[in-house]
Amino acid sequence: MKLTLFTDYSMRVMFYLASHPDRLCSIAEVASAYQISQNHLMKVVNELARLGYINSVRGRGGGIKLGRPADEIRIGEIVRQTEAGFEFVDCSGCTIEGACKLTCLLKEALSAFLKVLDKSTLEELALGPRDFDVGALK
Amino acid sequence: MKLTLFTDYSMRVMFYLASHPDRLCSIAEVASAYQISQNHLMKVVNELARLGYINSVRGRGGGIKLGRPADEIRIGEIVRQTEAGFEFVDCSGCTIEGACKLTCLLKEALSAFLKVLDKSTLEELALGPRDFDVGALK
Repeated sequence: MKLTLFTDYSMRVMFYLASHPDRLCSIAEVASAYQISQNHLMKVVNELARLGYINSVRGRGGGIKLGRPADEIRIGEIVRQTEAGFEFVDCSGCTIEGACKLTCLLKEALSAFLKVLDKSTLEELALGPRDFDVGALK
Repeated sequence: MKLTLFTDYSMRVMFYLASHPDRLCSIAEVASAYQISQNHLMKVVNELARLGYINSVRGRGGGIKLGRPADEIRIGEIVRQTEAGFEFVDCSGCTIEGACKLTCLLKEALSAFLKVLDKSTLEELALGPRDFDVGALK
């Protein structure tokens, strides 16, 4: 059971921005901090900008920052927005699709899962900028 | 967010067996009922037999049946046994692995997810044999 790479990267970049609230950050430094692909991250940032989670300031001295206060963004909200779908199993064409009771149970379980993620905001989970520096020395 | 195909097929075959408690079933008929690959299903059945969830009776007139009473098998148990892993995101090599608070939150959310699945047994979700026949006519 996995979240998509898109959700994973979305959370990483938003954590990074929430952990560096006092300045603009570059995509290159976020990619470097997590040792992930800058190209892939660029696509994620574009989508998060489209969704209003990230503000992008162009030009010299530009960069990215959170588009909304970190204490207003709940983790469950990020996951809902960025996951491509929540169909745990592929029911298309299944002969018992209408009668199956498992789908209801999985929906209920998903709801419980997201409810836990809704408890925490990005600000509550954010780290200090130094946590990233220490990590880089590992 | 998806469960693996292995978990998906495991649940399907066990639902089928729980829905036909009075006789042995063949892998071919289970594959046909769900319109899924018999070869893939064979591997799943072998693993479920190894785990004790399925009993396989060999020879003429043989087939498969549940290895334990359906009212003793909880859905959460099946998912725990058959999912390859519950690492929602790939933390390997992440620079903030030690400090990250998201992993704790995801563990808590997973626990809530499985707790819901633990409420129901295979017997409670099982259908009648006719539900599969009706499905086949769709």
